Amino acid sequence: MTQKTWGGRFQGGTDDRVVTFTESISFDRRLYRHDIQASQAHARMLAEVGLLNASEAEQIVTTLDAIASEIERGTFPFSVELEDIHTHIERALIERLGDLGRRLHTGRSRNDQVATDVKLWMRDAIDDLDGRLRKLQLALLAAAMREREVVLPGYTHLQRAQPVLAAHYFLAYLEKYQRDRDRFADCRKRVNVLPLGAAALAGTSLPIDRESVRRQLGFDIVAANSLDVSSDRDFLIEFVFDLSLVALHLSGWAEEWILWSTTEFGFLDLPDAFCTGSSIMPQKKNPDVLELIRGKTARVVGDLQQLLVLVKGLPLAYNRDLQEDKTALFDAFDTVAAELELAAAVIREVRLRRESIAARLEEGFLDATTLMEFLVAQGMPMRAAHEAVGRLVRLCEERHVRLADLPPEVFESVRPGLSSGVYQVLGVQNALRAFRSAGSTAPPEVERQVEAWQARLGSSERGL
Amino acid sequence: MTQKTWGGRFQGGTDDRVVTFTESISFDRRLYRHDIQASQAHARMLAEVGLLNASEAEQIVTTLDAIASEIERGTFPFSVELEDIHTHIERALIERLGDLGRRLHTGRSRNDQVATDVKLWMRDAIDDLDGRLRKLQLALLAAAMREREVVLPGYTHLQRAQPVLAAHYFLAYLEKYQRDRDRFADCRKRVNVLPLGAAALAGTSLPIDRESVRRQLGFDIVAANSLDVSSDRDFLIEFVFDLSLVALHLSGWAEEWILWSTTEFGFLDLPDAFCTGSSIMPQKKNPDVLELIRGKTARVVGDLQQLLVLVKGLPLAYNRDLQEDKTALFDAFDTVAAELELAAAVIREVRLRRESIAARLEEGFLDATTLMEFLVAQGMPMRAAHEAVGRLVRLCEERHVRLADLPPEVFESVRPGLSSGVYQVLGVQNALRAFRSAGSTAPPEVERQVEAWQARLGSSERGL
Amino acid sequence: MTQKTWGGRFQGGTDDRVVTFTESISFDRRLYRHDIQASQAHARMLAEVGLLNASEAEQIVTTLDAIASEIERGTFPFSVELEDIHTHIERALIERLGDLGRRLHTGRSRNDQVATDVKLWMRDAIDDLDGRLRKLQLALLAAAMREREVVLPGYTHLQRAQPVLAAHYFLAYLEKYQRDRDRFADCRKRVNVLPLGAAALAGTSLPIDRESVRRQLGFDIVAANSLDVSSDRDFLIEFVFDLSLVALHLSGWAEEWILWSTTEFGFLDLPDAFCTGSSIMPQKKNPDVLELIRGKTARVVGDLQQLLVLVKGLPLAYNRDLQEDKTALFDAFDTVAAELELAAAVIREVRLRRESIAARLEEGFLDATTLMEFLVAQGMPMRAAHEAVGRLVRLCEERHVRLADLPPEVFESVRPGLSSGVYQVLGVQNALRAFRSAGSTAPPEVERQVEAWQARLGSSERGL
Amino acid sequence: MTQKTWGGRFQGGTDDRVVTFTESISFDRRLYRHDIQASQAHARMLAEVGLLNASEAEQIVTTLDAIASEIERGTFPFSVELEDIHTHIERALIERLGDLGRRLHTGRSRNDQVATDVKLWMRDAIDDLDGRLRKLQLALLAAAMREREVVLPGYTHLQRAQPVLAAHYFLAYLEKYQRDRDRFADCRKRVNVLPLGAAALAGTSLPIDRESVRRQLGFDIVAANSLDVSSDRDFLIEFVFDLSLVALHLSGWAEEWILWSTTEFGFLDLPDAFCTGSSIMPQKKNPDVLELIRGKTARVVGDLQQLLVLVKGLPLAYNRDLQEDKTALFDAFDTVAAELELAAAVIREVRLRRESIAARLEEGFLDATTLMEFLVAQGMPMRAAHEAVGRLVRLCEERHVRLADLPPEVFESVRPGLSSGVYQVLGVQNALRAFRSAGSTAPPEVERQVEAWQARLGSSERGL
Repeated sequence: MTQKTWGGRFQGGTDDRVVTFTESISFDRRLYRHDIQASQAHARMLAEVGLLNASEAEQIVTTLDAIASEIERGTFPFSVELEDIHTHIERALIERLGDLGRRLHTGRSRNDQVATDVKLWMRDAIDDLDGRLRKLQLALLAAAMREREVVLPGYTHLQRAQPVLAAHYFLAYLEKYQRDRDRFADCRKRVNVLPLGAAALAGTSLPIDRESVRRQLGFDIVAANSLDVSSDRDFLIEFVFDLSLVALHLSGWAEEWILWSTTEFGFLDLPDAFCTGSSIMPQKKNPDVLELIRGKTARVVGDLQQLLVLVKGLPLAYNRDLQEDKTALFDAFDTVAAELELAAAVIREVRLRRESIAARLEEGFLDATTLMEFLVAQGMPMRAAHEAVGRLVRLCEERHVRLADLPPEVFESVRPGLSSGVYQVLGVQNALRAFRSAGSTAPPEVERQVEAWQARLGSSERGL
Repeated sequence: MTQKTWGGRFQGGTDDRVVTFTESISFDRRLYRHDIQASQAHARMLAEVGLLNASEAEQIVTTLDAIASEIERGTFPFSVELEDIHTHIERALIERLGDLGRRLHTGRSRNDQVATDVKLWMRDAIDDLDGRLRKLQLALLAAAMREREVVLPGYTHLQRAQPVLAAHYFLAYLEKYQRDRDRFADCRKRVNVLPLGAAALAGTSLPIDRESVRRQLGFDIVAANSLDVSSDRDFLIEFVFDLSLVALHLSGWAEEWILWSTTEFGFLDLPDAFCTGSSIMPQKKNPDVLELIRGKTARVVGDLQQLLVLVKGLPLAYNRDLQEDKTALFDAFDTVAAELELAAAVIREVRLRRESIAARLEEGFLDATTLMEFLVAQGMPMRAAHEAVGRLVRLCEERHVRLADLPPEVFESVRPGLSSGVYQVLGVQNALRAFRSAGSTAPPEVERQVEAWQARLGSSERGL
Repeated sequence: MTQKTWGGRFQGGTDDRVVTFTESISFDRRLYRHDIQASQAHARMLAEVGLLNASEAEQIVTTLDAIASEIERGTFPFSVELEDIHTHIERALIERLGDLGRRLHTGRSRNDQVATDVKLWMRDAIDDLDGRLRKLQLALLAAAMREREVVLPGYTHLQRAQPVLAAHYFLAYLEKYQRDRDRFADCRKRVNVLPLGAAALAGTSLPIDRESVRRQLGFDIVAANSLDVSSDRDFLIEFVFDLSLVALHLSGWAEEWILWSTTEFGFLDLPDAFCTGSSIMPQKKNPDVLELIRGKTARVVGDLQQLLVLVKGLPLAYNRDLQEDKTALFDAFDTVAAELELAAAVIREVRLRRESIAARLEEGFLDATTLMEFLVAQGMPMRAAHEAVGRLVRLCEERHVRLADLPPEVFESVRPGLSSGVYQVLGVQNALRAFRSAGSTAPPEVERQVEAWQARLGSSERGL
Repeated sequence: MTQKTWGGRFQGGTDDRVVTFTESISFDRRLYRHDIQASQAHARMLAEVGLLNASEAEQIVTTLDAIASEIERGTFPFSVELEDIHTHIERALIERLGDLGRRLHTGRSRNDQVATDVKLWMRDAIDDLDGRLRKLQLALLAAAMREREVVLPGYTHLQRAQPVLAAHYFLAYLEKYQRDRDRFADCRKRVNVLPLGAAALAGTSLPIDRESVRRQLGFDIVAANSLDVSSDRDFLIEFVFDLSLVALHLSGWAEEWILWSTTEFGFLDLPDAFCTGSSIMPQKKNPDVLELIRGKTARVVGDLQQLLVLVKGLPLAYNRDLQEDKTALFDAFDTVAAELELAAAVIREVRLRRESIAARLEEGFLDATTLMEFLVAQGMPMRAAHEAVGRLVRLCEERHVRLADLPPEVFESVRPGLSSGVYQVLGVQNALRAFRSAGSTAPPEVERQVEAWQARLGSSERGL
């Protein structure tokens, strides 16, 4: 009997280069725990339906536990000859249990076995990510509270637009990561469908009980169509897409904080522990962690593209191409998981440079829109008010002054009587206090949002 | 007053090339209906909170209706000078209503307006796609019933593997498209959150009532953070990703049927109405529709990649880059919508070439796995049975015979007594009947699935 | 005889949805001039080898010219029924010339015809792009000369690093665009290989003379293998890749200038003619053109990905999927061509804000590396010098001073005798003057580069 | 003195997670040989210009050789603390040579050092790939000669089109891989430009001699602009694009041979050594190598997309994001290199199943186009001939016969006198012999191509 699980019909060995080219043990070994978990459930089910007896199943379960321990301890021997983690474990079982080991693969195929292992792994991965995203949200919420009173210039087109509370800024990201969590939760529903029992592609003639396996492994339902199972990687691609969106959220934030760390912006000072220096320029303190978070986005997008290209044009059912799904999956997960941890750590440690921010806050006419809305509230048509304030801004630029510096007669010429109340909405602090709409940066509104997030995340006790 | 909505602060006009480079009217005009719908709700709300009076709001609503009719009839003039659909409609309103028209944009920005329009459009698009996917499922279900008794070779690695019922094959795709529908439903939850009222990025100082607008437009909730709204395109990217998965499902099926249409496979004959010919080769009948469905997958994947690249590294909040989201969105939707319609039509019209399929059905040892499972059921360890059958297959290949053609003594040499029952599981029809696991191609199991889908899709009345 | 070029073997018409789904006339009509050019060469060749007589060929050529004029004038009728530009033109020819028109397609197929048309179009497109890139280089060179004496902070990690001459900065982009030009030139070699005569996939039994066609159309060589021609889109994908790199170069520059246009950097002021405003915020002047140049990069990358996905897994020879190549091709070209024109225009118009740049030039320790090299030149090991200067920078940060502000005794403590010469290399202007390596920002070195580019681009007369 | 190369200005250590997140030693260690080669040239140059003395340079060179040997033998200790291969080697040098080791980094930065190392590595990689591509071409050429007389159905749209010689088929791929070789050669020109001496981004004040380094390392020219060097990854992206096209060529061929290996096509039988079996289905022999070649295309396309996303929107000059270029680079190279080796091996071993091919060769009307051209040669307009043959094909399909089976009177009804010569061009062998155009599958034309390739590749002695 050959080492392979499929030797009977073959003459001569496999070309050595083929062994190397087709192996997956170098990356699928990390599935070992989930492979063993699934095999144990399978063995117990085989006993339930009489394809094994109870003590046989028990021997298999126990021996698999022993194998798991060896892998954990690093004493289990791996070899590229044995192709993948599934063969490694089955071979070890056969070495220890002889013919009994040869019975484990009854009523299943590697196709449904792999899909099951991957889904079990992904279920854990999703739960892990959800925890990391929550920690990131807590870090953002803590920052929102910590920097509560700081007023930042808000930007569109990277041009100064209107004033925003720092808390409002941090809460914007809480929303984004919440959507990411929701997407993962939706993905999890589609992950949590049991493939095992689909066998190669058509099911089996043996009296297996998929419902028992489902129950043992905690899947929600049993996959309904064996051909579908054997060809399906939707769940995996959806997961990597969800990871891509997280990475893209992180990339925008990283970009922003790279800007904020410049001499020119001067909004924050990154702790030394999160920066590195230059091999040649002694003064440099570089935001490498932020740059790599931005840069590693490319990995995740590349991983997604790999998966989309991979499945394009593949007919039913399983094709060996699909083996290539796992490197992309693991790479995308590892990348985003590490990014999330570091992002949370950076956000916890950073402090805004309040003086530096405040020093230039009145630049950029952040109060212009409030002035326009003041005119609107007084009855001027919005477009006319917009036009009028636009002209005032041009005047200020010519005079190198702020709107609040314009004399009353200028405002009177815009609209008689305007000068009486207008100075109460000019200047950044006044402009900020004027906001009132739901979801706006109005201080009470932001306060309300902070409280809502505290309640939602249960932040006071856990994690803050 | 200039034509632009933002002229007051500018001196001199915009460079002509810039006008052409930055315009979006050539593609965003298709949002006109949703833009007007949103503006009408906005106007009504402005009246509710006293920023307009009731008759003013009514005039605006009525005039917008008139504008909508003109656009529908093709009598509305478009000009690249007016940038986008929003400016076109507002400008037309001002031309007709003067200062009253100038009041409509009160308390909103193009940023939240565009996001609202797009979400309204997407909500319709999702509902439309759901209908198309359901029709495709019904076509597949009809095919499953129509071709019920046909037995097909099932493939893995495009090598003949085990027999499957044609109905089982069609049902596999029903599963895939159901997941697509579920994904769109999940996406719709995230789409159905009202952006309007976020204004440019920070909200507004005017007393707008976002809840009223939400209610009028049928959104589930109001978006909570204005900065998030101004920068968010998650919903749009998720939608295009969901479209990509549909396209990829279609691409695999198209590939498969392109194969099935070859002289070599000969599984089906496409109706002339879905084929085209060659300009030089008179005998050609080409499966162009299937090829283009496969090829257009590339468009949708390209559209998704465009969006992922687009938002990479963008800081908060709105950046003009985001205008480029719509060409990808519309292209992906149009492509998939057309594909779905054609796929359903093709599936309804095609008939399997039953004789041609049956003629070669016994090739490829489709019964080998059943034979192995027969040995397992008799107590032989699975791996030993696999090995034994592998050797029998090799023997058959040498002798150019099928497993069922092997004489009893060969089976006896594998396992004494085997020859007595073995011929009842050999041959494709026997092998097929032997299946029994849940989700397998076992005839009663497939029947059960067909009935479940009929119930789920309400197929008997609608669409079949 | 049907309208299609391939009707003889078909019964019944084509489904209307199929007509719409498979048409390409909506986008391939822009190939009309090149299609006619190729057909005229083909007709002349047919006469040379006796498949037409001379007057027949002349009639065809003349009639094609007439058709070209009508298309140019907009009087030629287009219809989706006629599939593509090739059918339109051939059909018009047959309408006018009867049976003689039916002879034009002798010895060719649409497959080689389309490839020929596209290559002729691409050859023009490459030459056009080369001209645009040269103009952009000239604009950069003019800027280099115009802003010659301005000193900018050079960045790595977006942190201030070392001083650079503005001219050096502009020249960096000249290098990048020169590589783009070189890549297009390389691509052009592979484009300029004649496909016509490959016919459908196997050549023809008619005595055509491909060499004559090659000569008439100015191709370098005749493609050697008909199967290769019928399946090849390498040239087109390479071209779109080359466009992607141009777009990415533009994206980095656009990002940079978006930063430079912020209140925070304040390095430049974009002319009003290249900016747009906000519909709500009256003070805004946004760098929309730069943002869209950055954003449209995503289109081009998406187009490239579309092409890569498109050809993945396609067997020989022509497959209809390939029709989808042209939308990506045209979109990528149009996008980059427009970007190049606008980029050159922006660069010509912009002026650096010299005072604003100079005001903060001493921030960021731009002279630290020069100081370190000064120590090295005096014999201190580089690593030790790096360490020493690093400590001095820390000291400066604690004291809120520049390196040049440190008292002599501090330098003496680093290395006895250091204080005597050190002040001659401190300060940004001193640091800049210290450079001397080839390719560096040393003023004479930059001057040398400017002159080399002037000579290379022939700038003094043309374009500046 | 800290372990890092940049510690002086920093307080406190680097966060452990940051160390792990930012390290590159896990993947850049494979550059060690090229790093040492570049450092040795740098050291010799430093001696030439007096920044070291001759014996110091010699010590450095010798010690670097010793370090190289240790790395080769696997005795060199690696640690994630030391970030990258450059730091590892420099640190080891310092440990052994003390202050002399601290002098090596004089006048260079990691930025230009890394670029130089990568370019040296890539130059070798390109040469290696060129050799692999040539071997693949030789395998294809050998197959062309081996299977010379076999006639295959040629396909468009995967429908049988016209007959082609197997040799013609193999030569089509020779063309594609030749273009790949040409593209790599073009890329190599842009790779072979020396970055070293650009230092961090602005050059150096030390009197280095870049021309000496260029000469020592065999670069063609010295890069002209230091800012460009510090930001440039064009060469690397172009290389990975070129790899993508190779992978896509392989993917189409793999798809084709997967089809040819099916029961349905039956064109070839893959050697057992290049196939694997199934864990459940004993009869399966799967073309896994071909499937993985097709599937791994996705990796390479994903790698390219990673790089394109990576550099999008990065301002000058070096940003840490760029560190992420190497994993994509190495992965793409390793994947394609392995694919090329296996593809050549498979092509050498495979034999066409001549009887199986011949058995169905007359199916599909492969002679229809020749018949049409026969009519054209007799003076019938091409379109009329096309139409007429189309009707004959329909007639054959109704009668279930081949064109050659039609009785003379049918041909006479098409054109009087036709039946006299027509049977000499009907049937696949006749049709094949009728071809005559340059680049066609005409046997003498194919022979000419084979000879041309033999001469070009020097095949008789080397490799065949």
